Amino acid sequence: MFIPKRIVEEKLKQILADDIGLGDVTSSAIVPANLIVNAEVIAKEAGIIAGIEEATLLAEFLGLAVKVMVVDGEQIKRKQVLMNVSGDAQTILSIERTLLNLLSRMSGIATKTHSLIEKLERAKVKAKIAATRKSAPGLLYFDKKAVTLGGGDTHRLHLDDMVMIKDNHLSIVGSVEEAVKRAKTHASFAKKIEVEVTNTKDAVMAAKAGADIVMLDNFSPKQAKDAAHTLRKEGFSAILLEVSGGITSENLLEYAAAQVDIISLGELTHDARALDISLEILRKE
Amino acid sequence: MFIPKRIVEEKLKQILADDIGLGDVTSSAIVPANLIVNAEVIAKEAGIIAGIEEATLLAEFLGLAVKVMVVDGEQIKRKQVLMNVSGDAQTILSIERTLLNLLSRMSGIATKTHSLIEKLERAKVKAKIAATRKSAPGLLYFDKKAVTLGGGDTHRLHLDDMVMIKDNHLSIVGSVEEAVKRAKTHASFAKKIEVEVTNTKDAVMAAKAGADIVMLDNFSPKQAKDAAHTLRKEGFSAILLEVSGGITSENLLEYAAAQVDIISLGELTHDARALDISLEILRKE
Amino acid sequence: MFIPKRIVEEKLKQILADDIGLGDVTSSAIVPANLIVNAEVIAKEAGIIAGIEEATLLAEFLGLAVKVMVVDGEQIKRKQVLMNVSGDAQTILSIERTLLNLLSRMSGIATKTHSLIEKLERAKVKAKIAATRKSAPGLLYFDKKAVTLGGGDTHRLHLDDMVMIKDNHLSIVGSVEEAVKRAKTHASFAKKIEVEVTNTKDAVMAAKAGADIVMLDNFSPKQAKDAAHTLRKEGFSAILLEVSGGITSENLLEYAAAQVDIISLGELTHDARALDISLEILRKE
Amino acid sequence: MFIPKRIVEEKLKQILADDIGLGDVTSSAIVPANLIVNAEVIAKEAGIIAGIEEATLLAEFLGLAVKVMVVDGEQIKRKQVLMNVSGDAQTILSIERTLLNLLSRMSGIATKTHSLIEKLERAKVKAKIAATRKSAPGLLYFDKKAVTLGGGDTHRLHLDDMVMIKDNHLSIVGSVEEAVKRAKTHASFAKKIEVEVTNTKDAVMAAKAGADIVMLDNFSPKQAKDAAHTLRKEGFSAILLEVSGGITSENLLEYAAAQVDIISLGELTHDARALDISLEILRKE
Amino acid sequence: MFIPKRIVEEKLKQILADDIGLGDVTSSAIVPANLIVNAEVIAKEAGIIAGIEEATLLAEFLGLAVKVMVVDGEQIKRKQVLMNVSGDAQTILSIERTLLNLLSRMSGIATKTHSLIEKLERAKVKAKIAATRKSAPGLLYFDKKAVTLGGGDTHRLHLDDMVMIKDNHLSIVGSVEEAVKRAKTHASFAKKIEVEVTNTKDAVMAAKAGADIVMLDNFSPKQAKDAAHTLRKEGFSAILLEVSGGITSENLLEYAAAQVDIISLGELTHDARALDISLEILRKE
Amino acid sequence: MFIPKRIVEEKLKQILADDIGLGDVTSSAIVPANLIVNAEVIAKEAGIIAGIEEATLLAEFLGLAVKVMVVDGEQIKRKQVLMNVSGDAQTILSIERTLLNLLSRMSGIATKTHSLIEKLERAKVKAKIAATRKSAPGLLYFDKKAVTLGGGDTHRLHLDDMVMIKDNHLSIVGSVEEAVKRAKTHASFAKKIEVEVTNTKDAVMAAKAGADIVMLDNFSPKQAKDAAHTLRKEGFSAILLEVSGGITSENLLEYAAAQVDIISLGELTHDARALDISLEILRKE
Repeated sequence: MFIPKRIVEEKLKQILADDIGLGDVTSSAIVPANLIVNAEVIAKEAGIIAGIEEATLLAEFLGLAVKVMVVDGEQIKRKQVLMNVSGDAQTILSIERTLLNLLSRMSGIATKTHSLIEKLERAKVKAKIAATRKSAPGLLYFDKKAVTLGGGDTHRLHLDDMVMIKDNHLSIVGSVEEAVKRAKTHASFAKKIEVEVTNTKDAVMAAKAGADIVMLDNFSPKQAKDAAHTLRKEGFSAILLEVSGGITSENLLEYAAAQVDIISLGELTHDARALDISLEILRKE
Repeated sequence: MFIPKRIVEEKLKQILADDIGLGDVTSSAIVPANLIVNAEVIAKEAGIIAGIEEATLLAEFLGLAVKVMVVDGEQIKRKQVLMNVSGDAQTILSIERTLLNLLSRMSGIATKTHSLIEKLERAKVKAKIAATRKSAPGLLYFDKKAVTLGGGDTHRLHLDDMVMIKDNHLSIVGSVEEAVKRAKTHASFAKKIEVEVTNTKDAVMAAKAGADIVMLDNFSPKQAKDAAHTLRKEGFSAILLEVSGGITSENLLEYAAAQVDIISLGELTHDARALDISLEILRKE
Repeated sequence: MFIPKRIVEEKLKQILADDIGLGDVTSSAIVPANLIVNAEVIAKEAGIIAGIEEATLLAEFLGLAVKVMVVDGEQIKRKQVLMNVSGDAQTILSIERTLLNLLSRMSGIATKTHSLIEKLERAKVKAKIAATRKSAPGLLYFDKKAVTLGGGDTHRLHLDDMVMIKDNHLSIVGSVEEAVKRAKTHASFAKKIEVEVTNTKDAVMAAKAGADIVMLDNFSPKQAKDAAHTLRKEGFSAILLEVSGGITSENLLEYAAAQVDIISLGELTHDARALDISLEILRKE
Repeated sequence: MFIPKRIVEEKLKQILADDIGLGDVTSSAIVPANLIVNAEVIAKEAGIIAGIEEATLLAEFLGLAVKVMVVDGEQIKRKQVLMNVSGDAQTILSIERTLLNLLSRMSGIATKTHSLIEKLERAKVKAKIAATRKSAPGLLYFDKKAVTLGGGDTHRLHLDDMVMIKDNHLSIVGSVEEAVKRAKTHASFAKKIEVEVTNTKDAVMAAKAGADIVMLDNFSPKQAKDAAHTLRKEGFSAILLEVSGGITSENLLEYAAAQVDIISLGELTHDARALDISLEILRKE
Repeated sequence: MFIPKRIVEEKLKQILADDIGLGDVTSSAIVPANLIVNAEVIAKEAGIIAGIEEATLLAEFLGLAVKVMVVDGEQIKRKQVLMNVSGDAQTILSIERTLLNLLSRMSGIATKTHSLIEKLERAKVKAKIAATRKSAPGLLYFDKKAVTLGGGDTHRLHLDDMVMIKDNHLSIVGSVEEAVKRAKTHASFAKKIEVEVTNTKDAVMAAKAGADIVMLDNFSPKQAKDAAHTLRKEGFSAILLEVSGGITSENLLEYAAAQVDIISLGELTHDARALDISLEILRKE
Repeated sequence: MFIPKRIVEEKLKQILADDIGLGDVTSSAIVPANLIVNAEVIAKEAGIIAGIEEATLLAEFLGLAVKVMVVDGEQIKRKQVLMNVSGDAQTILSIERTLLNLLSRMSGIATKTHSLIEKLERAKVKAKIAATRKSAPGLLYFDKKAVTLGGGDTHRLHLDDMVMIKDNHLSIVGSVEEAVKRAKTHASFAKKIEVEVTNTKDAVMAAKAGADIVMLDNFSPKQAKDAAHTLRKEGFSAILLEVSGGITSENLLEYAAAQVDIISLGELTHDARALDISLEILRKE
């Protein structure tokens, strides 16, 4: 995901401003103005690091000097120093928590994503792990980017980049066939069309109607396998198959065995533990 | 936490706009304009509900009619209908995910908070469970409010409402004594002063210097108990004692036994699982 | 294109605020406060109307009552009354120009788009007329929506909804093959991949590499026909073919004869004449 | 029109952000990060260039290096290189369209304005060519500035800088005399007062009432000449005369012959063709 | 000064949001939710009221019911009830200070302005009292509007509505003559041109060069009188004369005697005492 | 009050943008582009300077070079040069008024605050002078900071940093006792609790209920002294005592004699005269 830095800066500035309020009363009261210090950002547990770019941007935006020891997406170890930030002490202290919250959340998501991908890789399965739109409110950009840094696929970014026909759409339209037909007529040719189905029959109907992707919602691994088999048998080899719902670290390989193309989990962003990362001021310079 | 609704609306509008992009291409293509439908928001697991006020605000702001069946902070059951939203189908579909993301995150945090409080209540312990500033980036308002709905204390809201002297401040200032002295001299009389200490000696020094709250950072339950005892013995009965760091659901009661006033956990907001909640369109009206 | 009205309102509010500055000094000086008047919005030339929804939103947002006589996308005649706006005279006068600028620009674009589509329809050609990203700066939403109201396809909405490999990308990557390969590896499965090519050989290579859409850039009608023929012959019947560059109202049917799927023209939005529309205050009520 | 660059930057940032959405998925997928390239912005047709300042600002704001070969307002030739932009390839590609849209629209307006002015100059007529408020929605600053770069007059910038009494005001107030009287009483002394009239009698009345400028709306060249003559005869030599409505490139000199001071045309901004300008990446550095 | 209410609302919302921070912790803790109360806004001293429109807008925007007993610009008495606000108690309490700050500042400015105007009226002098751009930072709209409600003239609203050549411009350009010449050549015909001069000679030169307004800066009443006399004598009867600098309530009539048209004072907005106004909750309903 | 500079910049940018409108038409017309000049900011009266940091930020943000001769909070003399600003002439002229308005207002507040503090210091009284929330609308940050630069205490910054129970809260809750009890139960432990009382009995009740600060509202010096005495006598030595209401420069020492801890005055920000400061362009460089 590429956004020019100065555009991301706007998001970071807003996040910081919310935390600052009318000023950092602690630093203001007890830390001398214009004191230059040096601080390290340190991992307190192992994982996949994400958010280094954003943290750097935030610090540099505020006039701090940053030296980076790791690259986003890299495996980091416990106690590893991730970046070094130096400059005005009051400034460092007033952004400490915002910077760490960004790094912790993004790294938590990347780490969770990566662990599932490793599992698939060890089993030599080619399916992609993908996110959903179940992000923290307002954090689509950061959450989706963290998923890609963990090796996952962003899936649809938001509501304007793919036609995604879900249960509620179908309950309004009445049939998979009609829904796909309308999408093909009214949506731009630039959009892929994905349909969420609850049984093999609808999966086949979606494929016949011209969907690009079929999502098997809450299928058991066995049902997913059957659906995949049926679709291949009926000649829909170009269509992408996605499974979603009820997938856990435990049953992941069973779903993978169904030879689907994409495995998506809301949990990547909805249940990710933040990675424990801290900032330590080293010494006055 | 009371903010006039119209001010919260601004935050919600921004969150929604990010998800909408240049438009919901799915609803636009396959759902008729001006179709009136009725939808239910349903819990898919039990917990403490939070975010009903925000979800209502979001829906009403967009011209939808809302009937609410639960009140924020209430215990809800699996399959319970939480609210009913009716109005323009395209509008409902385009806010579905934003509305659910708000409810899920806030309810997940409230539920986690409440479970710890229940544990304390069952043990008849009076300590408060409190949040930290370890929120998701930019979500201080929503995360802190969810904690209060679960029965917890917000702790410091952001950087301007309390003097909170932490390890990094102390490493700059040099001593607890000097740090508190500076805070008492330079900070407004309107602010409480809290000091984070790593040993009993510093806890006593903070109390002597005039801190209002002492936070025992990463103390074992035993160490916390000793520190509390020492402080009481030295006559600092008015000072509030907080423990933080390394506290889990398992050892919570051990810490509580130390007779501290506040137990704060970053995990309330950093590791909360989103509660599973869904929206179902009932039928065309 | 569906965006909840309240989100569009934000865009309209900004546009209006820019025009108002510190206040409408004319209305303020010579029009009595709280005078209720009735005004008609009238077409001064025939065309396809677009922007009625936005104009209504703007007027209602400011507390004016609106009666609409036409629907967006409808063919209108010279002197036709499009809408009736009533309410506070100072308010009507202060939004008159903003409202008309919206209607005029959007209707101009819709009218131009529609005239090309009619030409294709009369020739019984199935190709779609599509816009490009050559909008007026910052007006993507309004310009793209106007194109759809004229019957055209939005094409890519902005930079995040499709992979679109253009000349400059190719000059960096080196070959069509490599570019498509990278897109298939690194971009989300949710995105279509389009490649802009300058000769038939590259068109075939793009198809072989797995592009979903091939855009023939600045091909003559003859060259376009040959490229289409070659691709069909090589079995790429599912791939979408787009032509762009150098297409005018005059040679449109020649391109259409090449049996391409999409004909895109930057001119739809870059050179559209604004439709002449005016507002007339009828009488004091 | 002078606005400090950093204030214009805000407008440009917003325009860019709208186009970027959640990121440039194409550049992200196929262009290496941190690749430095060099690009030329090239005119594909002759005209008056405008927007170089804004394009430079946009590029520099994003960390790109810019070398400028032309100055805003200058006559440029087909194939002329206008500016050279170098820096991060992903950044250049993600702003290409926004930068070109700015340049194309502003240059199109400047070119159209200039062609009319040249016509007047060749005929040795002194009248000014002026814009109206018929800009693209929200683009007042860019459109008005483009007019000045083409040699034209901005006319009123927005609603707060001049009293401009138009037909709708008159239909409310009842008479030119009363309208001007109210303006002179209630508007600030800092504002000029202009009145739009539809016949010579009202023109004279406006002058008598103390208007600074009289605009002859939809007068034929002959009627304009008569009105001008009458006003001069009655001694109103200081009053400025403006004609507007129905003026085209063809009849421009006939209106000029009426010895009016200002000729204003909505078409300068409402019907200007964007100038064809492109960006080409030269080579990897 | 007329701005549609919804545009002013944006400014008010921002002012309120700054004061609210993450919530009104007092009302939240001790006032029951959804309690309906009734409150009166009461003058604690006499003056000219201003800001009733803005206060009403703010209250209504937040869902409160407002009954207004006075009209902006009216003379009010000590203890007079100005408006009645009823609705949700937490909401009323959380906007109390913002509402009162608006009313107090605007009324203070209106009162001060009015007192000078009364002095002139009693002396039967026709000169206008005008504001300058010496407002509180960011409060141009509110400060200027307050001046007009007190009966004064806004003068230039901001930097785009009049050419105002001041000492610093002259020190760059070198002479009054050259400065006015440049303004007449380069500025739009829609702008008046005012020149600030420090002696009678320059005043005459400005008039000869074609200035619309001449401002006598820091002239003594005697000098102002001489300058006015000289200008009239030289036949510049149409030019407006303004005095500014060193004018106080005491010497106001001396300046007025100089027969100038406008007397402007930065003090109207820079030194105005806020009028004492309070809000009292009457009783629970 | 410490806020990272880049966050304050946002506020300054907004203030400037409001004043600029669509551009500085004077500088644009008569000052050459890219002319480098040098300007001095000069005090025209003595006082305490405040706002140098903000003025510097504003100027540097726009690319101007700044040399500062004084430090915020310093006593300055009439005719003293405060800062030197050099760079583009059009830029300097277009920010002149905004920069001076910031400096003048903040310095006026700091000067007024300081004069009261000096009075207390001369009388060897320890009480703090504090501000209230009676700021100019939207200027809380600037007004409060100016108070601290004058040596005062900010008091509560806005609505979220202290529980402040005032007359209107009490009229809803019914009793001081109940109000404080609710605050202690529902507000965060991180907040101090202040109660505004109108008689000694309530002051004692507030202290008993556990308030941290008691504010004696509109007490006479004598009543304040009695209240203080009573509270001390009853053993509430730790509680802070504040007086507010009716305090002037004249009776300040009488109140101070009451041995209260804090004396707060709305007048610090509501009635402060702006300090007279000007900017003079020295010479072309």
